[in-house]
Amino acid sequence: MSNLLDRIQTPADLKKLSMKELQELCGEIRSYIIQTVAHNGGHLASNLGTVELTVALHRVFGTPDDKIVWDVGHQAYTHKILTGRKDQFPTIRTQGGLSGFPNRQESEWDAFTAGHSSTSISAALGIAQARALKGKPGHVIAVIGDGALTGGLAYEGLNNAGRFGKNFIVILNDNKMSISRNVGSIARYLAHMRTKPGYLKAKSNVETIMNRIPVIGPPVWAACHSLKAVLRSLLYNSTLFEDMGFYYYGPFDGHDLPHLIEVLESAKTIDHPLLLHIVTEKGRGYSYAEKNPGAFHGVSSFNVQTGKSSATSVGEKYSAVFGRALCGFAEEDSRICAITAAMKTGTGLEEFSRRFPQRFFDTGIAEEHAVTFAGGLASQGMIPVFAVYSTFLQRGYDQIIHDVAIQRVKVVFAVDRAGIVGEDGETHQGIFDAAFFNAIPGMTVYSPCYYDEMITDLRRALYEIPGMAAVRYPRGTEPFRPVDFLHNGDGFDRYGKAEAPCAIVTYGRLFAQACQARSQLQKIGIDTELIKLDRIKPLPEDALKAVAEKQAVFFFEEGMQSGGVGEHFESMLYEKENYCGMCRVHGILNFVAHATAAQCLHTLGLDADGMVQTIVSEWKQQ
Amino acid sequence: MSNLLDRIQTPADLKKLSMKELQELCGEIRSYIIQTVAHNGGHLASNLGTVELTVALHRVFGTPDDKIVWDVGHQAYTHKILTGRKDQFPTIRTQGGLSGFPNRQESEWDAFTAGHSSTSISAALGIAQARALKGKPGHVIAVIGDGALTGGLAYEGLNNAGRFGKNFIVILNDNKMSISRNVGSIARYLAHMRTKPGYLKAKSNVETIMNRIPVIGPPVWAACHSLKAVLRSLLYNSTLFEDMGFYYYGPFDGHDLPHLIEVLESAKTIDHPLLLHIVTEKGRGYSYAEKNPGAFHGVSSFNVQTGKSSATSVGEKYSAVFGRALCGFAEEDSRICAITAAMKTGTGLEEFSRRFPQRFFDTGIAEEHAVTFAGGLASQGMIPVFAVYSTFLQRGYDQIIHDVAIQRVKVVFAVDRAGIVGEDGETHQGIFDAAFFNAIPGMTVYSPCYYDEMITDLRRALYEIPGMAAVRYPRGTEPFRPVDFLHNGDGFDRYGKAEAPCAIVTYGRLFAQACQARSQLQKIGIDTELIKLDRIKPLPEDALKAVAEKQAVFFFEEGMQSGGVGEHFESMLYEKENYCGMCRVHGILNFVAHATAAQCLHTLGLDADGMVQTIVSEWKQQ
Repeated sequence: MSNLLDRIQTPADLKKLSMKELQELCGEIRSYIIQTVAHNGGHLASNLGTVELTVALHRVFGTPDDKIVWDVGHQAYTHKILTGRKDQFPTIRTQGGLSGFPNRQESEWDAFTAGHSSTSISAALGIAQARALKGKPGHVIAVIGDGALTGGLAYEGLNNAGRFGKNFIVILNDNKMSISRNVGSIARYLAHMRTKPGYLKAKSNVETIMNRIPVIGPPVWAACHSLKAVLRSLLYNSTLFEDMGFYYYGPFDGHDLPHLIEVLESAKTIDHPLLLHIVTEKGRGYSYAEKNPGAFHGVSSFNVQTGKSSATSVGEKYSAVFGRALCGFAEEDSRICAITAAMKTGTGLEEFSRRFPQRFFDTGIAEEHAVTFAGGLASQGMIPVFAVYSTFLQRGYDQIIHDVAIQRVKVVFAVDRAGIVGEDGETHQGIFDAAFFNAIPGMTVYSPCYYDEMITDLRRALYEIPGMAAVRYPRGTEPFRPVDFLHNGDGFDRYGKAEAPCAIVTYGRLFAQACQARSQLQKIGIDTELIKLDRIKPLPEDALKAVAEKQAVFFFEEGMQSGGVGEHFESMLYEKENYCGMCRVHGILNFVAHATAAQCLHTLGLDADGMVQTIVSEWKQQ
Repeated sequence: MSNLLDRIQTPADLKKLSMKELQELCGEIRSYIIQTVAHNGGHLASNLGTVELTVALHRVFGTPDDKIVWDVGHQAYTHKILTGRKDQFPTIRTQGGLSGFPNRQESEWDAFTAGHSSTSISAALGIAQARALKGKPGHVIAVIGDGALTGGLAYEGLNNAGRFGKNFIVILNDNKMSISRNVGSIARYLAHMRTKPGYLKAKSNVETIMNRIPVIGPPVWAACHSLKAVLRSLLYNSTLFEDMGFYYYGPFDGHDLPHLIEVLESAKTIDHPLLLHIVTEKGRGYSYAEKNPGAFHGVSSFNVQTGKSSATSVGEKYSAVFGRALCGFAEEDSRICAITAAMKTGTGLEEFSRRFPQRFFDTGIAEEHAVTFAGGLASQGMIPVFAVYSTFLQRGYDQIIHDVAIQRVKVVFAVDRAGIVGEDGETHQGIFDAAFFNAIPGMTVYSPCYYDEMITDLRRALYEIPGMAAVRYPRGTEPFRPVDFLHNGDGFDRYGKAEAPCAIVTYGRLFAQACQARSQLQKIGIDTELIKLDRIKPLPEDALKAVAEKQAVFFFEEGMQSGGVGEHFESMLYEKENYCGMCRVHGILNFVAHATAAQCLHTLGLDADGMVQTIVSEWKQQ
């Protein structure tokens, strides 16, 4: 596509370019990213912010021997383009194509698979310790955003890395944002550091010192550090990072490539953990994204000229319906609070945050705190609703048990993106929550398929259930609904003829697939009744009775099979109903790679075709 | 038992005593705690460290309207004694008696149930926010140790609490210890603050300022704060806590009761989050515990005069056998690393830490980091073994999925205290790990009953399994072993006659109960064969075949039933083996309160008697 980028096969090729060419290259990479994301969707603003940083890192360090660990990984597109995956880049986030995140299975340049926040310092420290033990030279660099720094895991990592006695570089990529604007004291603290009069001055001080002294190496930086240590208490006070044992340098302009290269060259000579604070602009170089970085964090396909989404409008999503419904309840009931962990927009809580600012809490990327905080609110009679993506709620597993369930308080979990999420792939699929809730005493779990059900379930969770409850719903929009399907059951619905010899049992949006499977099966003379569970814990006993006389029961589950709802249903069916027909549970057995949700379900055999095939082969062809 | 303590029924009674009497009272409370713990076992050193602090808190604040949230809760004995539970105190940690930790169900004075570390700030903030929303006056105080401060959840709590605009008090109870000596940068940082020349001076400065100005109230403290803010950069630099948005005061002597009371009286007048740093001595007032606070952290019964354990020696425990075995492997293989989250002694890693200090990592109370760090080590070909109590591994749930399983790396989890732990109660039972491992792809899980098996399993986990693996074993010592039982199976063993019509399937130490149940059943003419699973994931297929022809199969599980191993076994039995007999799974359905492990198993119906009763009533009396 362009001259300079054509010459880059691996990062080694960067070392052949002049500074001017490197700067030009950054422009080419930006265009390439914008074009590709405009077509495939993906993370845009965060990737545009790290172009210079990535070029500088690969120019200075010797990857893949040196290791770069990207936190979250939604800023690693330039890294992928520079590390032998330029030509595959247009396949990103598509089935069989590149992952949207760093992935160890994809490339030796991807030091650690990512997707969730705040893991990079801990993983990088593990890598660095392993190399130290093996006497292997080289550098390990963790790149972490200011948003990810609000996660406790990052702090645990800093606390442990601060005493590592060798070169270990943490780059704080400070763009003042998580996905939305960053929150909490750390955010305020970083803002304070950026706006201190010392900011630019310190930068030029460092430059001046560096430029004046002919040999740039450890002694100079050590001297700078001592000097700064003395001056810091006057200029900056000490920094939090120095309290954690790191040398702190910065803030530096993250788009000034020559300066970044100079800083990194110096940084690699210091035998001590370093934190380099660089300031970048989310969306840099694409005006629409610069103006509205939140909206361009994760996008579907769009028109490059206008910045407008080119996806046809698909109507309201689960998140939006949830958010609106919650506002309705909160209007009537001042006990209701909403909590998000840096996902206000994604979870549909924008309106709530505007209308009920006192009762809206954005914790930053801190799911553990969010759950325990909810437990505290609930202990005083408030009704906190924590809206969170299924995959991120994994972070709060212990807190759900210890700070909600054991407290015997009412917290409602609005579990968004439950089930297959699709393009974000393995790290983001919401396939564990049904199984982990399954084991937690006192939990009630709803898994609606349609919006009206979701609202009913939310009301039940808020008011009819004595203890804690979860309402889990998929990403996207509600699926196909048969015109003759009426949701009116308490806990489950039946659809089809009661005398059918075979039952398909399912929950959540798989019901829509089951409806289509049922039609297909009818055409080949197999009559099935559908049992659509709405409450998946505790299981509605009448749902078990409804299938107790069938010849065959097929349970399809968009979640882990082992330890999941299906096995529990099957156990109860055999034990409580003395069922003596055939029962087969089909859920998910392994991690699920990126593809569209429909492709994933198809691969898993959980779409209508898969259901038909399973039933025919396992039952009818016996 | 004594004069002053007899006069205390509730904290209100403290307000009637003179300062001299309060100080005497502290001595009486100490004696009472020492006597009781010497008899029942429990947490000693941590509780002796907080006597003055607790008396001061209840003297100054108006509990239960004001809320004290104890982190971990192993320092709350004085609190229990002062809040209406003095007479029940000798029942602590016994069946039906007081819990060893704060418990909302036990007393209105226990604001939040605890047991796990680092939850207090988040929970207290939730309580404080709820009160602010309801316009309810009063104070909320979180008491957190320096050990608990190494947990990321505490940092997330600080980050969120720092912007709370009202009085909110965090007391940092700094005793320089987790259970063992505290580690990491934060520990070093606190040590640094304690040893600065400013320490005592600052204290007397504050005193001097307070004493000179007649009215002690907000203006004075605000002035102190401004003054300190100026002086701090010279004296202390700023503190990490101030970077998090807190006002910081201290360090104060945590055993100087009059001074503590004065500090707390002032603190309650400030409309801002405060961190009060107090320094206490673990084991204070009991010479043996002062000398060896680690050994007196959690103790079984002992002789008060000699400090010697009065428990008869029970021989080596699982932890010790594990630790020794791991040293053996590490001797031969330099890739093996050991990781603990502040539980070096409890998990049996003392010897490892001495013999292989380079390969031993104590992360502090930071299970999330420990798992991700292990993932990083493993990505470079090391073989990290994370030794951790089952209940605390819940903290690393997301990291097990995201930073180990998805990375496809070999990490070994040595899961100690798996199953019922007994006296520590609900918050500490290791009853979730089998269920949560069950759903994680690529995981191999062993659950041995005897030491020789555990060592074999550890070897298999290290060398025979390609991916990640867990070896889980109970607290305490190995149970009864039939003389004719030989462990030689791969994945499972059979015990008894193959033609018996009924099988008992179980794993872990329940096998010993099953052996006794089998003998009892034999006496009443019921012949059973035992299937002892050693590998519980993936299930050994031959174990399924072994029971496929039985009339009845009973699965007993010392873990959660819903989503557990039993249901998965049952599912496979019916689906893969086309089993058509009776199968019944019996696991744990609810949280398990404190009692001895034997009492817990009995209550749960999981001891030999329970198994016999179940089999007779569900199968033989049908």
